[in-house]
Amino acid sequence: MAIPVSSRPAELQEHPVVLDWPVQWGDQDALGHVNNTIYFRWMESARIEYFRQAGLGHLMSNQGVGPILASIHCDFRRQLHFPDTILISASAVSIGRTSMKMVHRLYSTSQQVLAAEGSSVLVMFDYQQQRPVLVSDAIRAAIERLEGRGHGA
Amino acid sequence: MAIPVSSRPAELQEHPVVLDWPVQWGDQDALGHVNNTIYFRWMESARIEYFRQAGLGHLMSNQGVGPILASIHCDFRRQLHFPDTILISASAVSIGRTSMKMVHRLYSTSQQVLAAEGSSVLVMFDYQQQRPVLVSDAIRAAIERLEGRGHGA
Amino acid sequence: MAIPVSSRPAELQEHPVVLDWPVQWGDQDALGHVNNTIYFRWMESARIEYFRQAGLGHLMSNQGVGPILASIHCDFRRQLHFPDTILISASAVSIGRTSMKMVHRLYSTSQQVLAAEGSSVLVMFDYQQQRPVLVSDAIRAAIERLEGRGHGA
Amino acid sequence: MAIPVSSRPAELQEHPVVLDWPVQWGDQDALGHVNNTIYFRWMESARIEYFRQAGLGHLMSNQGVGPILASIHCDFRRQLHFPDTILISASAVSIGRTSMKMVHRLYSTSQQVLAAEGSSVLVMFDYQQQRPVLVSDAIRAAIERLEGRGHGA
Repeated sequence: MAIPVSSRPAELQEHPVVLDWPVQWGDQDALGHVNNTIYFRWMESARIEYFRQAGLGHLMSNQGVGPILASIHCDFRRQLHFPDTILISASAVSIGRTSMKMVHRLYSTSQQVLAAEGSSVLVMFDYQQQRPVLVSDAIRAAIERLEGRGHGA
Repeated sequence: MAIPVSSRPAELQEHPVVLDWPVQWGDQDALGHVNNTIYFRWMESARIEYFRQAGLGHLMSNQGVGPILASIHCDFRRQLHFPDTILISASAVSIGRTSMKMVHRLYSTSQQVLAAEGSSVLVMFDYQQQRPVLVSDAIRAAIERLEGRGHGA
Repeated sequence: MAIPVSSRPAELQEHPVVLDWPVQWGDQDALGHVNNTIYFRWMESARIEYFRQAGLGHLMSNQGVGPILASIHCDFRRQLHFPDTILISASAVSIGRTSMKMVHRLYSTSQQVLAAEGSSVLVMFDYQQQRPVLVSDAIRAAIERLEGRGHGA
Repeated sequence: MAIPVSSRPAELQEHPVVLDWPVQWGDQDALGHVNNTIYFRWMESARIEYFRQAGLGHLMSNQGVGPILASIHCDFRRQLHFPDTILISASAVSIGRTSMKMVHRLYSTSQQVLAAEGSSVLVMFDYQQQRPVLVSDAIRAAIERLEGRGHGA
């Protein structure tokens, strides 16, 4: 679930959206630690929560225009294990003509440490036309509002 | 399964290891395309096949020393759908003191196009000591041999 | 991919549809064997291949009428490990008014043994109306044809 | 996380262990509802929480003796969607010589309805010897205690 600013560690204070998420036993692989694919599932969940909190949840559909993942990167700093609760943050650090850059931090509450950092490029995509479209002013304003940034337009 | 050089598209010719992999219907998410986490599962499978072909399959265990993922990146170029067969390649492009860089290409046989490219940094890790260790000469030689690069020994 | 009758073990001869499927390293969990959820993913893939071979692939959509899973059961006989190739069969053993019963066998080619057996009940479902509908004569005939059963109507 | 008896719906009152679990967007498949494999992942998480609450968490390892899944069944009553929080219960309804039967209920808090019911047979398994062993008196007592059943010792 989304958690309030007051109960966040310092590492996540700057990011407007933070989820807390339980590690499932089954998230672990044969090496006995959380598998790398799970970090991307978690970042996806934070990304979707971000759009929901921005009032843009309706964009998560392939019936019209919505953000599509163009690239994603993750730096793994610590191994994670069951049981633990992970705080997963999201922040849109910049918005271009047809895309935006989102960053994520993953914090282990049991280890009290930043376990991973991620960044992704999302392209605003028209699923019918199958091509990128401009980030609309309404979407831009909703994101700037959630980030607490002035947007002077 | 691993596929021979002769049946590979030009885009994958330089990589020593190529798997062909069926898309499962369940790899698709609510947007009706293959979910981003699956690309990382596929790259993981190619990475493990790479170590197997290098004669280093025994490294995939948390009982001793083995490669651990330090970072990974993926550029998504095309959406993928069921049914399709994906060719997933792996090549170790450089080896450092305690780490190596591996790159991947994902090719859609139904679209006949490069669908994604990835790169990762793997650190040679001692799971008991929980710290990086040197890439041994034996591992280095096994990888250079698979890559078909001279290694002066 | 779907495999021909001639290359099947005796245990799968009676089932009209058999897929062969590579175990992924990441299918294994922290106990070092293939996780139970993967068996259901595999049965799902065989179920979908079954409908495709029956000429009913268009049913796998939530835009109209299609089969929805009402119940599923799996008996696990052997642990499975990477690497292996699993043969996954499907057969519709009976068709009722609004539902059908499908059975599955999972065979390990490395162990040469039946590793699991499953059965499921699928209900023909109208996703718009959100209720069960009759199995149409066309669907019934397509399935009986794939099973090689006379259907005298 | 595990939730107290007082905040449970009537349908789950009899089961000693109840988890609440957020649906992830990525739990949904191309039909736009939670995929069937996720129900088994959730039941697995409730099963493991059950053993933890019984003081038997150390059994979840393949280094000694632990419960292994022999069979599992799930009846699906409702489709589930993101966002939702699912309550997942577990109760060991009977213990045999080498096995036990566990049942599960999955409750959708957004729909306020029982969405699925499951049952499984777990065999006490010696991973070194690769064979079933007797359910020890200590394990039996720990489970009866959690279930609140007298066990005459």
